[in-house]
Amino acid sequence: MKLFNTAQLEAILPKIQNIVNTHIIPLEREYLQQNFSKVKPKLEEIRQKIKKEGLWNPHLSTALGGLGLSLTEFGQVSEALGQSPYGHYCFNCNAPDIGNQELLLGHASNFIKDQFLQPLLEGKIRSCFSMTEPHFAGSNPTEMDTSALKEGNNYIINGKKWFTSSADGASFAVVMANTNPEAENKYQRASMIVVPTDNPGFKLTCNTPIMGDTNDDYFSHGEVSYTNCKVPVKNLIGIEGQGFALAQQRLGPGRIHHCMRWIGICERAFDLMCQRAATRQLAKGVMLGEKQSIQNFIADSRAEINAARFMVLHTATKIDNEGAKTARIEISTIKFYVANVLQRVLDRAIQVHGALGLTDYTVLAFWYRHERAARIYDGPDEVHKAALARQVLKAYGLNTSVV
Amino acid sequence: MKLFNTAQLEAILPKIQNIVNTHIIPLEREYLQQNFSKVKPKLEEIRQKIKKEGLWNPHLSTALGGLGLSLTEFGQVSEALGQSPYGHYCFNCNAPDIGNQELLLGHASNFIKDQFLQPLLEGKIRSCFSMTEPHFAGSNPTEMDTSALKEGNNYIINGKKWFTSSADGASFAVVMANTNPEAENKYQRASMIVVPTDNPGFKLTCNTPIMGDTNDDYFSHGEVSYTNCKVPVKNLIGIEGQGFALAQQRLGPGRIHHCMRWIGICERAFDLMCQRAATRQLAKGVMLGEKQSIQNFIADSRAEINAARFMVLHTATKIDNEGAKTARIEISTIKFYVANVLQRVLDRAIQVHGALGLTDYTVLAFWYRHERAARIYDGPDEVHKAALARQVLKAYGLNTSVV
Amino acid sequence: MKLFNTAQLEAILPKIQNIVNTHIIPLEREYLQQNFSKVKPKLEEIRQKIKKEGLWNPHLSTALGGLGLSLTEFGQVSEALGQSPYGHYCFNCNAPDIGNQELLLGHASNFIKDQFLQPLLEGKIRSCFSMTEPHFAGSNPTEMDTSALKEGNNYIINGKKWFTSSADGASFAVVMANTNPEAENKYQRASMIVVPTDNPGFKLTCNTPIMGDTNDDYFSHGEVSYTNCKVPVKNLIGIEGQGFALAQQRLGPGRIHHCMRWIGICERAFDLMCQRAATRQLAKGVMLGEKQSIQNFIADSRAEINAARFMVLHTATKIDNEGAKTARIEISTIKFYVANVLQRVLDRAIQVHGALGLTDYTVLAFWYRHERAARIYDGPDEVHKAALARQVLKAYGLNTSVV
Amino acid sequence: MKLFNTAQLEAILPKIQNIVNTHIIPLEREYLQQNFSKVKPKLEEIRQKIKKEGLWNPHLSTALGGLGLSLTEFGQVSEALGQSPYGHYCFNCNAPDIGNQELLLGHASNFIKDQFLQPLLEGKIRSCFSMTEPHFAGSNPTEMDTSALKEGNNYIINGKKWFTSSADGASFAVVMANTNPEAENKYQRASMIVVPTDNPGFKLTCNTPIMGDTNDDYFSHGEVSYTNCKVPVKNLIGIEGQGFALAQQRLGPGRIHHCMRWIGICERAFDLMCQRAATRQLAKGVMLGEKQSIQNFIADSRAEINAARFMVLHTATKIDNEGAKTARIEISTIKFYVANVLQRVLDRAIQVHGALGLTDYTVLAFWYRHERAARIYDGPDEVHKAALARQVLKAYGLNTSVV
Repeated sequence: MKLFNTAQLEAILPKIQNIVNTHIIPLEREYLQQNFSKVKPKLEEIRQKIKKEGLWNPHLSTALGGLGLSLTEFGQVSEALGQSPYGHYCFNCNAPDIGNQELLLGHASNFIKDQFLQPLLEGKIRSCFSMTEPHFAGSNPTEMDTSALKEGNNYIINGKKWFTSSADGASFAVVMANTNPEAENKYQRASMIVVPTDNPGFKLTCNTPIMGDTNDDYFSHGEVSYTNCKVPVKNLIGIEGQGFALAQQRLGPGRIHHCMRWIGICERAFDLMCQRAATRQLAKGVMLGEKQSIQNFIADSRAEINAARFMVLHTATKIDNEGAKTARIEISTIKFYVANVLQRVLDRAIQVHGALGLTDYTVLAFWYRHERAARIYDGPDEVHKAALARQVLKAYGLNTSVV
Repeated sequence: MKLFNTAQLEAILPKIQNIVNTHIIPLEREYLQQNFSKVKPKLEEIRQKIKKEGLWNPHLSTALGGLGLSLTEFGQVSEALGQSPYGHYCFNCNAPDIGNQELLLGHASNFIKDQFLQPLLEGKIRSCFSMTEPHFAGSNPTEMDTSALKEGNNYIINGKKWFTSSADGASFAVVMANTNPEAENKYQRASMIVVPTDNPGFKLTCNTPIMGDTNDDYFSHGEVSYTNCKVPVKNLIGIEGQGFALAQQRLGPGRIHHCMRWIGICERAFDLMCQRAATRQLAKGVMLGEKQSIQNFIADSRAEINAARFMVLHTATKIDNEGAKTARIEISTIKFYVANVLQRVLDRAIQVHGALGLTDYTVLAFWYRHERAARIYDGPDEVHKAALARQVLKAYGLNTSVV
Repeated sequence: MKLFNTAQLEAILPKIQNIVNTHIIPLEREYLQQNFSKVKPKLEEIRQKIKKEGLWNPHLSTALGGLGLSLTEFGQVSEALGQSPYGHYCFNCNAPDIGNQELLLGHASNFIKDQFLQPLLEGKIRSCFSMTEPHFAGSNPTEMDTSALKEGNNYIINGKKWFTSSADGASFAVVMANTNPEAENKYQRASMIVVPTDNPGFKLTCNTPIMGDTNDDYFSHGEVSYTNCKVPVKNLIGIEGQGFALAQQRLGPGRIHHCMRWIGICERAFDLMCQRAATRQLAKGVMLGEKQSIQNFIADSRAEINAARFMVLHTATKIDNEGAKTARIEISTIKFYVANVLQRVLDRAIQVHGALGLTDYTVLAFWYRHERAARIYDGPDEVHKAALARQVLKAYGLNTSVV
Repeated sequence: MKLFNTAQLEAILPKIQNIVNTHIIPLEREYLQQNFSKVKPKLEEIRQKIKKEGLWNPHLSTALGGLGLSLTEFGQVSEALGQSPYGHYCFNCNAPDIGNQELLLGHASNFIKDQFLQPLLEGKIRSCFSMTEPHFAGSNPTEMDTSALKEGNNYIINGKKWFTSSADGASFAVVMANTNPEAENKYQRASMIVVPTDNPGFKLTCNTPIMGDTNDDYFSHGEVSYTNCKVPVKNLIGIEGQGFALAQQRLGPGRIHHCMRWIGICERAFDLMCQRAATRQLAKGVMLGEKQSIQNFIADSRAEINAARFMVLHTATKIDNEGAKTARIEISTIKFYVANVLQRVLDRAIQVHGALGLTDYTVLAFWYRHERAARIYDGPDEVHKAALARQVLKAYGLNTSVV
């Protein structure tokens, strides 16, 4: 990995890894079986410590108080943080807040920045992103029912969203809604609008039970209804009809973040698998790790994780050098490739743990359940594969339609 | 499937399927997100109805009030019941009770039969089976720490067990403990003993949190400590040192039951996947099921489910005709083969459901979590594959050791 | 397999297997590295012996001098014959002749039967089937360039075909050509016509080199040009425009034949793999078969072969009972499923043989090369999977188009 | 791939790629169906041209007349050359000669260098490497029967080898033989000795038929017998007992060479697959590449090739920086990972070509047959996976034995 190393990274990565290892991971055994709100006070202590150590907001520029990392550098930080489900939260670079921060930094008015972004950067509030609707394929974001009608200086928003992750406890939502339904270009109908969650028209109907776990607060996925939800026009992000374009921009680096976080999960799962293999006795003097089936699990996982990491870091470097737009195909490629590596590595790690792997006594079961989503959110495998292939085939003269 | 059909089956299977469809499955949406104890009163009503309709205990001989089915016939009943997590429970043929019933019917004294088996058959009580220990590989049941020392007319049992499924609310446990630790043959050291759960030496320490779900009652997996747990010698099942042999006997038909239940799950998941593919719109006029990736999921699943069912029913027929012993290899074969089909089919069904598949609004997420265990319990894949291969290679003159 | 056993089968199968083992398989080592014409005299001797023993034409009715087997029974004969590449040829039930026999028996005029079918049944001549064209997707047989224009009492055939298997040495070809290009229904444009290969308009351009092996005679795949090839109208099989329907009819049982032959190959490969694993020494006292990776190969292969065989025999039984038409979906299912099992089993058997597996000193390399075609001919995997899925989805109300 | 680019590479790679595209690849269609000796004169012309252009021996230092490339740079040259089976031969960096060159350069006496290495570097002769024996597992090179007894100033070599690739037409063989059978350390028993092929004790028994293709000259795999083969002691490479150590040294960079060549094959296969997908019509107006199954093949292949290339180039860079010894684990990882990617990509490319893919009218079938060996030679998958896992587990305190 030398090629991706930098002096800056060598200086901070060990400190970050150390915080993960000594402060964050130890919380898992007790708190992962409980709702997020239970662990929150503990995490708040760690967040304060991280601020003190100058590691807060590692994804931001130094001008904004961050660490001024390239995407390639931050990717490696993200891998370290990904080794625990609490990692990114502690450093204030957790989804969906990190995406909202980037969005507002890039496109919001000063009003919005003061009102909403500033406290978000300071970690005083949380936010959510409200785009997916239950009755439309998430893979086709141009289809959407939620509307934002302009009435005077306000938008009146109506619609239903779900998978508005972390809505529970968030101070505001960034909502995707149709402001220009009549626009000919279907990609120019939606806009993004900031909605404070204490708005009477905003209602968190419930947290969706996901794989047996409803949880709460940051660890939740809200169903939200917008009912005649009136917000001032100044809450618009960017300009009207720009919603789809902003969503696309958001996804590029967002997928790098996910991928590197997944690799962090893979490394942690790999470590647990090897520890188990090396120490679990099958019979007197025969350890699990001596069995070739287990060795195959380890070898295949090592190879796949290495392959995944190289691909992601090269993609990050391309984005650093040439921008996210030119790396669209690489982003699609890593999105589905790494998500599948993740699932296979978790599956093998659980198999090596036997019955223990099924319990919540290791973090494996948490990820096995919650990261099944990795092959679905931000574009299911099938969509990314088709996108990649269509792009490749263009160079051979074949133009195929999207759907 | 005509080959496995019988007049008896044609008479009862539609009735059973009808109960599953109209009474049992409709409970899932509301109750699967709650603990089992919440749905219990509803299930009790259904159990009474089933008794009234003469479908209770379908696995038992008519002499015992059952339906007098062959294993091949019962396998097909089991498939129907497997289509809901509540199915087998409603018909009183759920694991681990069905295994305990068979065990006691075959090997218990009249005392034990009167005391424990009779109310179990009537559905008045539940039971559990206490064999796996946290510190030993479940795949190697000859390694075990729990001891049962004979003192006068009693056994004094000490040890710790886990994955004593459904211990919560059970009236008795069948415990595997070393009564003859000094026996030269390591397969003759353990015995099976009935322990009433109100014995002061029996303690349900906790229900293990499994994949984010601790649940309770029948839907739980207990950790149990036996501390100077004194039970009369007459609670011994069979003879001393027979524990391992009885466990083996238990597993043969038990694996058929699991396999056919898994196929029921596969069929349900397949049905949900097809419904979704046929009705989910990707864009105006384009349905999910028109995409070849989705068609591949459906085709591969159909082929694999068919293959799995044929193998299981042929194995059941072989057991019916020749006994479980001669079918040992076939049983190992279906155990790992069907468990893997199950996991793949569930994975595809979830993928086709997209975000919805991750929620507890369909039963898929329940099975995805809880049936990850299928490749582990009753012998992990690796053990069954090795067993199968070793047996095959014997015929070629190669004898290989077990571990 | 008891369920598929019959008294008839028990009487003849051991005899057939014995001929395969003692007469046919031993020829492989010397002759498989040479062209087919070299082994032909040896095979002719075996054919005579088979005739004498009354096992000739096992697929035909007793009225026609065959063994009067059901498809389920013949499938099991086919499995035995499939264990050597020479097997079916020796018994005169090899493709494409068996398909042509069935076609002519069912649909040809007495003239054609006398002229062409009779010597084919007697094994005096061979035939070929000329349908696939290089410039059209074989998976879409309605697209075809070859034309047969009626001029008086003759058809004038023009076109180019390839993969006219075994054209080299065949006495006649059954050609698929458009006689009714103007028919509105594209499935009613083609007809099947018998063309003697000594017709001056018939030219075997070359035998296509396939995976490094051009071979000759029965083991070849001809490229054929029809140039103003004039044949009498009485050479038409069935009626004009029926070509597509006849081709479909031919494929149903044809796929069962292929599938059972593939299972024969699987069993032979499995046997070779196990022999190797049991006898190859890795180091002093350590045999290959003791390694768990090898055991996994054996276990996975055993499971998949069993699964494949059950599916095929059940499909055969359904065809026996209900006809090929109702079994269309099952036929698509086994076609792709078994072809993939075949490829995996061959791959594993080669891997277990190491360098030897790459050589032509075992039959494995022959099949590895030549049966790569199994996932392509008679409909590639992708077509069968889509067909299966579309059929399934119909029951859910979704009708999707073929292409 | 920018990260691995250098000014040197930018200068030469386009020239090399151009020679491959315009001179080498066009020979395939005519000559791949024939023996190598037929294409040799054509290739000789190209070799002269390459010498003239100063691109000869790209793997050697400038001092030796090569291009002075790092392994990372040469890897990328090797990828370009790998796009045709003739590529490496034309540039004189083909296995096994490249390995013998490196071996002799590093360890041979001046006598051997003058006699054997010099003409090899000039491309005047070819050589072979004689290590594998039919009766011993190639994966365990310490087991070997060939002996070299010292008698006065000579070694008397006796033994049988096979897979002595390219022995046909070679001027000398490097033979691995036991010179010190009594050495306690089994890794110090064998030595490497140069044997001119015109030695009367050297006999090329035959070229082994491999996957239907015996071929000749450089494209052959010889079976060689050494019968009282007397060679002077000065033909010893390095010192007695060093054979195993030299073999290990040889394999490190050798595997990089193979891996990069395989990636070249993958890229060529990928290109053919995309061309076919973009231009093959399924029905009027429907191209093959519009089908999602085909798109999945393309997407999965692109992702896997990218992943493979990154891993190999990073491993090459590690070898450049730290030496092959520290990269042992990475070398095992890429060996099995890339070989499997290769097989999958070739398989998909053939499937997309349909019947054409089976013929020798594209190069795909050549590689499909001959590169099945990639998962076997230089250590089968199973051995590399176990090596990788054992090394990983050492860090967790578990030491497992090799066999």
